[in-house]
Amino acid sequence: MADRLDAQMAFLTEACKLKSVIRATTLCDGSRRENSGEHSWHLALYAMVLGDHAPEGVDVNRVIRMLLIHDLVEIDAGDAPIYGTHDAAVTEAEERAAARRIFGLLPGTQGADLLALWQEFEANQTPDAQFAKSLDRFQPPNQNLASGGGSWIEYDVDYDTVATRVGAKVANGAPGLWDWIAPKIRAFFDGRA
Amino acid sequence: MADRLDAQMAFLTEACKLKSVIRATTLCDGSRRENSGEHSWHLALYAMVLGDHAPEGVDVNRVIRMLLIHDLVEIDAGDAPIYGTHDAAVTEAEERAAARRIFGLLPGTQGADLLALWQEFEANQTPDAQFAKSLDRFQPPNQNLASGGGSWIEYDVDYDTVATRVGAKVANGAPGLWDWIAPKIRAFFDGRA
Repeated sequence: MADRLDAQMAFLTEACKLKSVIRATTLCDGSRRENSGEHSWHLALYAMVLGDHAPEGVDVNRVIRMLLIHDLVEIDAGDAPIYGTHDAAVTEAEERAAARRIFGLLPGTQGADLLALWQEFEANQTPDAQFAKSLDRFQPPNQNLASGGGSWIEYDVDYDTVATRVGAKVANGAPGLWDWIAPKIRAFFDGRA
Repeated sequence: MADRLDAQMAFLTEACKLKSVIRATTLCDGSRRENSGEHSWHLALYAMVLGDHAPEGVDVNRVIRMLLIHDLVEIDAGDAPIYGTHDAAVTEAEERAAARRIFGLLPGTQGADLLALWQEFEANQTPDAQFAKSLDRFQPPNQNLASGGGSWIEYDVDYDTVATRVGAKVANGAPGLWDWIAPKIRAFFDGRA
């Protein structure tokens, strides 16, 4: 049991580095950019509170666990901003290698279980993964609306780009959430036109 | 349903402020102080990974949910450092008022449920709360060991103070975790003597 705990603590101390991975989105008050550790907390809280907007059959406890680990690969691969230009195949390969290394710090079965949970999130095929991905896309526009534009201004995007890159994924796993925020995003861009 | 979602999103946007509440503990690399949002994420991950060290009967999914909300009251009341001197009765009153305000942003039943979950954590009487509190006390010494002392140096404490303020609470809900870290903490202070 001591060896098992040594391995688990090595993983948890490595995970601490996620607090130093900086995202494109700012905090709601615009005071600084958000890091991927606090982002993961906020998303897990989104899942906990918005579970009643999930499609039938979604297991919210699994979604929370998925969101707690979904960004750990960024410790090695960095964050790929939604509106940035990056080679998706390269990012994917880096993230897969990162997942093997980071979850590989854990004891055998536990590491394999968390790797499988991360792979399920990435594949975006199960209802749990689709709801988790929807929340991951739904949180940044809320912070952009709160902070007066945030990453939308920085990347100089318009409503249609947001609808394509963000809206489609939110609507895929949580259509009610996209219906709620879409008019707010449109009003924001209309107000700037 | 739209009114319900309005209320839930007001709560989730208010929760964003927890990322700006600064704790005494630094990150594992010592580069800066940790905030309570990323701390809450890290603790929920601790619960997810260390569930097999919880006493019989602990519901790890409930513990994760408890840890995701346990520090929200600090948005109003601030963080009370473990080794700091503060009036416990004043802090407690401020935190109780904060809980009523912040969970009160949520729709009726949901707000009452999360308030009850936070009160259970604070009361520290159920096995779930005791395990959650143990993790909340177990994480900072791990970060202090990783960063070369952290808040122990700043507050100029010794091994006995750590054992009293931290060890007793860790051992209360997760004795195996205290047995694992106590010799490491002792070795740290012996090395400085």
